[in-house]
Order: sequence, then C-alpha cells, then structure tokens
Amino acid sequence: MNAQQRIHRALESALVRGDAPGAPPRLGQAVRHAVFPGGARIRPQLCIAVSMACGEDDPAIADGAAAAIELLHCASLVHDDLPCFDDAEIRRGLPSVHVAFGERLAVLAGDALIVSAFETLAVGAACSPARLAVLVGTIASSVGRPFGIVAGQAWECEPRCVLTDYHRAKTGALFAAATMAGAQAAGADARPWRALGESLGEAYQAADDIRDVVSDPKTLGKPVGRDVALDRPSTAREYGLHEAIRQFDRLVADATAAIPECPGAPYLRALVKSEATRLVPASWCTDMDRVAACGLSRAI
Amino acid sequence: MNAQQRIHRALESALVRGDAPGAPPRLGQAVRHAVFPGGARIRPQLCIAVSMACGEDDPAIADGAAAAIELLHCASLVHDDLPCFDDAEIRRGLPSVHVAFGERLAVLAGDALIVSAFETLAVGAACSPARLAVLVGTIASSVGRPFGIVAGQAWECEPRCVLTDYHRAKTGALFAAATMAGAQAAGADARPWRALGESLGEAYQAADDIRDVVSDPKTLGKPVGRDVALDRPSTAREYGLHEAIRQFDRLVADATAAIPECPGAPYLRALVKSEATRLVPASWCTDMDRVAACGLSRAI
Repeated sequence: MNAQQRIHRALESALVRGDAPGAPPRLGQAVRHAVFPGGARIRPQLCIAVSMACGEDDPAIADGAAAAIELLHCASLVHDDLPCFDDAEIRRGLPSVHVAFGERLAVLAGDALIVSAFETLAVGAACSPARLAVLVGTIASSVGRPFGIVAGQAWECEPRCVLTDYHRAKTGALFAAATMAGAQAAGADARPWRALGESLGEAYQAADDIRDVVSDPKTLGKPVGRDVALDRPSTAREYGLHEAIRQFDRLVADATAAIPECPGAPYLRALVKSEATRLVPASWCTDMDRVAACGLSRAI
Repeated sequence: MNAQQRIHRALESALVRGDAPGAPPRLGQAVRHAVFPGGARIRPQLCIAVSMACGEDDPAIADGAAAAIELLHCASLVHDDLPCFDDAEIRRGLPSVHVAFGERLAVLAGDALIVSAFETLAVGAACSPARLAVLVGTIASSVGRPFGIVAGQAWECEPRCVLTDYHRAKTGALFAAATMAGAQAAGADARPWRALGESLGEAYQAADDIRDVVSDPKTLGKPVGRDVALDRPSTAREYGLHEAIRQFDRLVADATAAIPECPGAPYLRALVKSEATRLVPASWCTDMDRVAACGLSRAI
C-alpha cells in the first residue's frame, strides 16, 4: 500500500468513525465534502514519508498523525472560506462547504474536523500511548495558539502584521508538524526534521501567493486575485512576482538541503522536486502578462 | 486547594500556554474573554469530584481533563452565539465574543479553544500516557461526531429532530464525559459514572429550557425567550412548563440515585442538590405569570 492509499484509508476511517444511525446526516455530508475529494494531500504524504525514513515500526501511528494533520488542514480551509473571512465560493473546483451546506454547518464541520483529528491521532497511537502524548503536543501547537494556523489566521484581524510571522503560523507550522510528527510516529527525534517542514511550508505559502496572481481559477480550483481583493498580506504583493518566484526557488532548495541523510532521503528529495514543479511550473517565470491585469505591475 | 481553585489554575495555565511575545494579541484577548469570568464551572467540578471519589493518585490528570472539558464548553458557547446560530449579543452578562471582537476572531477563538483543550489534556496526563489515550477518546466523542456537542448543534440545521437526541448530544454528552473522564483520570472504570453525567446533562438542558422561559436576562446573563425566537427544540415549549419542571426534578433524582456508593458520594450528592436549587429555584414552580407573556400559555 503506497502513501496515498494509506492516507485515503486513514481519512476514510476517521470519517466513518463519525457516521452512525441516529446522527444528524447533513453534518456528516458537510464533513465528507470538506475532506473528499482532496487536494494534493502533501502534508500527510510528508508525514508518512518521514515516518518511513525514520524506520517506522507501527504504521498505524503515522497513518493517524497524517490523517489528523490533513483533517486539521481541511478544517482550516472550511473556516477560512466562511463569509466573514475569504467568502470563497469555490474550493478544489467545487462549492465551498458554506455554499453547499450553509454557514452554520460549515462552522460545525470545521469544529468536528478539529475534534476528529485528535480522536484519529489517539486511535492510531492506541498501542503506543507515550508517542501519543508527544504527537498531541506537536500537532496542537501547529494549529492553535500562540503560533499555529489559528494564530496565523488571526493576524488577518490585526491592524498590522509581520509577513514572516503570518506565513510561518498560517502555513509553515502545519508543514513543520507534518515532518516532526512523522519522526515522532516512528519513535525518532523530531528536531532534525523541523527545518524541512518549515522551509516547505514557507515555499507553499510563497507558491500560494504566486498562484493567486498568475494562475487561473480552473487550475487553482478556487478564485484567483483574492489577496488583492481582500487586502491580505502576500509575498507577491509586497515584493513583486519575480522576487516571489526567486524566494520560492530558494525555499525549495532550502527544503531539499534540510532533508537529513537517511535511506528515505532520495524519495523525499523527489517528493519535494515534483511538488515544486506542480506548484510553480517553470513557464510561469516568464508569463507576466496576466499579472499586469491584477494591478500589480508596479510591484513587479 | 479546593476544586474551584484547581479549575481556575488549570484554565489559567491553559490560556497562558497560548500567550507569547509575537503572537497575535487580539486572539489571546478573545480567548480569555470566552473563558473568564466563567459560569458555574459545573462540568469541571464534576470531573474533579469524581476523580477524587475514585481515589485520584495524580491530580494533574483530572485538572487537565476538567480544564479541557470547560474549554470545550466555552468553545461551544462562542460558536453557538455567532450571528449564523443564536446571534446572541450577551453571554454571562458581558458582550459575547463576536460582539466584543468581531465574527472572525470569534470563529478563531472557538477553534483555538478546541485545540487548547486537547493540548491541556495531554499536558495534564504527561506522566500517565495510557490514561491520556482513553481520555482523548472519551472527551473527543462527547464533542464531535456522531453524538457530541457539534452533532447536537447540527440537529438545529436539520428539518426534523428528535428532542432527546438533540439534548443528549448538545448537553448530555459533555456532562457524561465530565464524570467518566473524572474516573478515567484516576485510573478507574468509567462505566459506573456514565449515568450520573447523563442524567445531570439532561437535567441541565431541561433547566436551560425552563430558564429561557421564566428567568430574566439579568439572572441568566444572556437574553431570554431565545428558544421561541429561534424556533429551537425545547422541553418547555414541547411539553409545557409544569411538565418541564417535573422532568427536571425527576432527572435530578435520577442523577442523585446514579452516584455510585463510595467515600465521595455525600459530597457529590450535595453538589447535585445545590446545583439543582441554583438552576431552578423552588419559587419558579408557581411563578407562571411571566410565562404567559412568552406566548406559551397554551403549552402550559
């Protein structure tokens, strides 16, 4: 069973655990809509790849951690899309949860996904409770206060924000948790794996900013130009597109260099490379025409 | 240190854990606003009382569980008060979180509280990871799908709902988790403690419905008449006030009878009794005048 199959099965188990006769049916549908079909599932892939690289002895632990991380990512997208935040109508090419099920069920689906994440983590690590305690700490701090996703999102509610703090919390923290939790799931030291996650998280945020400017809605599966429309901090807006792409390449190189030498290193390097190409195709570096239409010509 | 002091300290620690220089300050303020000053803190009191009744050997575990349960209760109130749900402007006599900090920070504060709950649980049980795994399961299932608070709230988004299912999930589940987690925190069997929590939870829901009809906003610390205004399922609305009070008394008696015989039983019986008197003063049974003003005269 490859990593994508493991992730799919773990997410499916997490969702099925919440289904039962006598449960409110639309909540279950909203949660499923938020999780399937998924995006690239890069965070859980990273988690499992690192666990394997660390010689995992009980794959159920990494499967639980990987699913928990993806469920939390999905929860953040559902709440991020709400009318009071991005008011995004499309996500992964489909109506966002609040459009499909209403705002109330979108709030509840996000909440249910957060709870399900910790439940899934506990089920996966049932035979290794000592690792569970460590994993709850790692994953909770990547999502909550003071420096997790929720804190990152909260920077959008402050009059001023430092771009690096915002990105590190909103995106970098969960990536760092993915690599660190992968190591912890295998009973290994998480510290050597932090830099890989952090660099990749920053690269993803940079890519997201770039994609918001140069991609089209069909490729992206969601509206483009949102950073400008919402006056949201963005590398591409602050430093221009050329600089944003240079920064992306630099962060991908940092991530690759941060992979500790181990039997799983070649696979991880290949994973980083293929993701980088998928996120920011080389052709974009010269495709500046669309950018001018976004009112960013001065910044470029 | 008595139970209320233990609860206060555990909640304070949970909040302080999320404070740090460089964190978005308003999120921290919103979270604190949601937790302090608190209500009766009955759920964490129950958790600690049961843990003590079961001969707790490490109070940090029950403190963590009690704080986790209260944080989850606070999270549910914050999201419940949002404009898309109850649109409640007042909570515990103060502006609700979304009124004081805006809707976005209210969504995020609720999310942060859910994450903080599981983190707090893990910190408390750091020395007893085997108990942590059990506690995460108990507490997660009382909040998430298929039968926890989130599911209870989701019944409000369904065209039809069974009142007992709605109450059991929205209120009963977290009360049952409070008593069961108390036992599990002490390393004891949770099963004999479930009935106490369930009956008390039902009694609280019945009391909440009664208070929504006969109390005044100052006593309640939030607007009254919301069940009617929001067309929300309610025992008092469905069966009339007399029957609702009879049912409340019956549930309190059930709760008292469900307390297992143990050295802590007298304290628990006294706790149940004082809470019952606080929630539904005996004078209310004859105070019917206000009810007519709520348009419920026919039901009564």
